[in-house]
Amino acid sequence: MNISHIEHLGIAVKSIEEQLPYYEGILGVKCYNIEVVEDQKVKTAFFKIGQTKIELLEPTSEDSTIAKFIEKRGEGIHHMAFCIEDGVANALKEVEAKGVKLIDHAPRRGAEGLDIAFLHPKSTGGVLTELCETPKK
Amino acid sequence: MNISHIEHLGIAVKSIEEQLPYYEGILGVKCYNIEVVEDQKVKTAFFKIGQTKIELLEPTSEDSTIAKFIEKRGEGIHHMAFCIEDGVANALKEVEAKGVKLIDHAPRRGAEGLDIAFLHPKSTGGVLTELCETPKK
Repeated sequence: MNISHIEHLGIAVKSIEEQLPYYEGILGVKCYNIEVVEDQKVKTAFFKIGQTKIELLEPTSEDSTIAKFIEKRGEGIHHMAFCIEDGVANALKEVEAKGVKLIDHAPRRGAEGLDIAFLHPKSTGGVLTELCETPKK
Repeated sequence: MNISHIEHLGIAVKSIEEQLPYYEGILGVKCYNIEVVEDQKVKTAFFKIGQTKIELLEPTSEDSTIAKFIEKRGEGIHHMAFCIEDGVANALKEVEAKGVKLIDHAPRRGAEGLDIAFLHPKSTGGVLTELCETPKK
């Protein structure tokens, strides 16, 4: 597996609106997109810091996985996503052969129409880990 | 405050030795340094992924803050560190004036002899946040 960089960090928040003054007014990073992802039951807000996006995740329903995460652990970093240069499907095959437990056994469509897949935190030292396809140039 | 990139992510682990096969054998990133930081009661292992370091933090004592973190929340991402271009002392003054609660009211020496300081997670949406000085060229 060839990882080029950390594509994004997903951060669980109760309210994007309440966090915007911290990110924009204090850290000085500009939110460039807010969108609702219906099937994940989250609203997301995006910022860019160097190579890495910060993706705030606000639950839109009480049965969203993000709502459950916040209820159990409080607000904070929810997952880390790596940008994979040689394809998510190849990377999944490779890591599964090495004994890594997968959440997604095949890539699915993520933000910007790119392939993504999650590895299980049981195999990754407790860090929920996402693999993301490198956008075509 | 001028943030250039995410300098590192600190990840709390029970055992660096147990995590090395995942980072080196599965993710394919090479550990380039392991050191004990006596006053923090941690052993640290460093990897580089794009602009960002991954810093594994293993407690060397039961009363280490990392041991307490793992006991309470399990292994996982412990903190996020930003690289600050205009000095950590200036950034602390600026954010404190804007009402951010600080853990460190003045910079202290961190890894590689550079200034660092922590912001309190109460002011940062639950994310323990470190500011790091940019190394001189």
